[in-house]
Amino acid sequence: MAVRLSSKDADFEARFADLLAQKREVSEDVDQAVAAILDDVRKHGDAAVIDYSKRFDRIDLDKVGMKVTAAEIAAARAECDPATLDALTLARDRIEAHHAKQMPSDETYIDPIGVELGHRWTPLDSVGLYVPGGTAAYPSSVLMNAVPAKVAGVARLAMVVPSPDGKLAPLVLAAAELAGVDEVFRIGGAQAVGALAYGTETVAPVAKIVGPGNAYVAAAKRRVFGTVGIDMIAGPSEVLVVADGSANPDWIAADLLAQAEHDASAQSILITDDEALAAAVERAVEGQLKTLPREEIAGASWRDHGAVIVVAAIDDAVPLANRIAAEHLEIIAEDGDRLSREIRHAGAIFLGGHTPEAIGDYVGGSNHVLPTARTARFASGLGVLDFVKRTSILRCGPEQLRLIGPAAIALGEAEGLQAHARSVAIRMNPGG
Amino acid sequence: MAVRLSSKDADFEARFADLLAQKREVSEDVDQAVAAILDDVRKHGDAAVIDYSKRFDRIDLDKVGMKVTAAEIAAARAECDPATLDALTLARDRIEAHHAKQMPSDETYIDPIGVELGHRWTPLDSVGLYVPGGTAAYPSSVLMNAVPAKVAGVARLAMVVPSPDGKLAPLVLAAAELAGVDEVFRIGGAQAVGALAYGTETVAPVAKIVGPGNAYVAAAKRRVFGTVGIDMIAGPSEVLVVADGSANPDWIAADLLAQAEHDASAQSILITDDEALAAAVERAVEGQLKTLPREEIAGASWRDHGAVIVVAAIDDAVPLANRIAAEHLEIIAEDGDRLSREIRHAGAIFLGGHTPEAIGDYVGGSNHVLPTARTARFASGLGVLDFVKRTSILRCGPEQLRLIGPAAIALGEAEGLQAHARSVAIRMNPGG
Repeated sequence: MAVRLSSKDADFEARFADLLAQKREVSEDVDQAVAAILDDVRKHGDAAVIDYSKRFDRIDLDKVGMKVTAAEIAAARAECDPATLDALTLARDRIEAHHAKQMPSDETYIDPIGVELGHRWTPLDSVGLYVPGGTAAYPSSVLMNAVPAKVAGVARLAMVVPSPDGKLAPLVLAAAELAGVDEVFRIGGAQAVGALAYGTETVAPVAKIVGPGNAYVAAAKRRVFGTVGIDMIAGPSEVLVVADGSANPDWIAADLLAQAEHDASAQSILITDDEALAAAVERAVEGQLKTLPREEIAGASWRDHGAVIVVAAIDDAVPLANRIAAEHLEIIAEDGDRLSREIRHAGAIFLGGHTPEAIGDYVGGSNHVLPTARTARFASGLGVLDFVKRTSILRCGPEQLRLIGPAAIALGEAEGLQAHARSVAIRMNPGG
Repeated sequence: MAVRLSSKDADFEARFADLLAQKREVSEDVDQAVAAILDDVRKHGDAAVIDYSKRFDRIDLDKVGMKVTAAEIAAARAECDPATLDALTLARDRIEAHHAKQMPSDETYIDPIGVELGHRWTPLDSVGLYVPGGTAAYPSSVLMNAVPAKVAGVARLAMVVPSPDGKLAPLVLAAAELAGVDEVFRIGGAQAVGALAYGTETVAPVAKIVGPGNAYVAAAKRRVFGTVGIDMIAGPSEVLVVADGSANPDWIAADLLAQAEHDASAQSILITDDEALAAAVERAVEGQLKTLPREEIAGASWRDHGAVIVVAAIDDAVPLANRIAAEHLEIIAEDGDRLSREIRHAGAIFLGGHTPEAIGDYVGGSNHVLPTARTARFASGLGVLDFVKRTSILRCGPEQLRLIGPAAIALGEAEGLQAHARSVAIRMNPGG
């Protein structure tokens, strides 16, 4: 049973602060182990990757090859249920259509004194996509990471996915093909991150690595940051539902449990101004839990991290929601649009009773890779912008240099950088 | 004397690859020391920061206070040369005007089946700006980091700057005031990064930390990434000049030296198709070096990392420039515009003979915080986008859920996430 808080309680602020500060993830200290693995991969390339794959994944890459072949991918696709492939294709198409609208534009303009300023966006040449193996191998996640990269124009998209005991999920390979992934390697862990960052005989290095992973993968990404770009370090996932008395408690309970079933460190929170709704949702959660295949996980998440918060008025939910800065925020209220506009920090907002968060996970078209664990305070969900970079452009003529050059000279001299000053002055006094 | 390469040489590819792989920075292993400092600041707040400031900066913050007062800032401004303040103001105004154009727009649209999709941008609530102390305390750098944050709408901008032996650069404080910095603390090093990330009794925590620093600062930023956002880890700086025979060798030499004077690990490279220009630039560099106050630093940079590359045709410079992915790229050639369009990887491009890179450093209006050390392959210069984040918005009605809900259910079930599937199904079969 989740905690119940009421804004009327004297200790509300303290209990809410506790909820925010709750540490939901055991941070394993794997940094030294990861440093050694990365160093090994940088020095010994394929040999190191093959060695670690034997140890951690119990697979002999010397025999089966590091690269997954086109024939294997075709065979995997043939194994998949056609209805699921259709659903994946629909998801791919909708994600593609939405992300195509995110492509930023180049711009150049002439300012009032005649200086030309502008910028141009170019896609990254190559991107590595980390996909977890085992039970957390989600085909939807392959689409969400790969499609925006391809929409951005990334020419080479290399996916790595561990293959414990030689197994690969057919739907993950099918999703990779649907998304236009160019290369798939059956490697994982810090060694796969190292291979993508530094390159090996088999794996050409990439410019950026994206995708979720375990503590080893997260630590490895943190370490190679700078050599390559990385996306956010994903933490435990959460949903916040803000609802008034107009909402359906069974639907809300289903959404809270959809989040909770991810893993025991997931967090589901309801904020409502309706005491009766709060109680009805609590009852519905208990009822629905019993029939869930992942009852144990979802139950642990709800018990350890779940919360139901009753506020005096629905507007009081807004400042609390901004402090929670949830990855997923559902707003189901008569005045939902207005509440939504007052939200400053959230990864994604799902508006109205007919937008369960799971629609966004799969087929809404927006991205499901979103800032977790309160990082929506400073980070955005994944999108096309993560796969392009901007080159700024500047052009002066003699007249512009005459107008702003003296200020540049003054600042260069003030900073003790005489060669900076001279590089401007020499053009203003061609004799100098 | 810089190395001279010619694309006609048999060993050109090997020598060019060596140039790219050249390690220009000694990477100090300060990670364990930094981890201890951060831990200490998280646990002991102000007391730890005060203690480290005594040890590293020889300053007693118990006596002088951690926060720089408004009176101190006013006194600092009064100390500055009015002409330099005017130049700083001009720079501030131009940076502000240019960055205002970078503000991204919110967007909402209805897709063909009636799903509402969109996104909204919001500024970060608070940002920490790290400013190095001592000789590397550049007022221009304060403007370049602070102005875009304020343009983005960041309400609280907290600057930290170490004050070794109690000293602070007046121009740095004046620049902070001009840029609208809200708070200034005389602290630096990993302890200042820890204070900004975790908060102390005196320093409220921020959502993101930007700004350059030494190896300790870089390691600390890497470690707090996730708790707060960070910008790029800055590496040694570089300029690449691509020029044909139409260019003025004295001007190019001045630009190469302006880069070289930053520090001994800076890199200046010229690529030209004109043998005579190459020789003239080499001579001009030697000549200009002799009269530079920072001759020793610039000379070391040019000797150890400088390069002059002669290619058969100016178009051959393009693929080399893309491999170098320079922070700063000057193009001074008759066909410069066409060459510029073929550049895929560069932090900033400076077009034509009258746009020395130093104009971009100070008064051009574009940002001088740019991706260094080949990271322009995946990163962009600093801008307004670094101080805002995007919330995605999704809304379905019953009809849209009927159309795409079944695909979401199929994918939820395929991924073994029954609660996901149910959260959609329960809305489609209200009885279920």
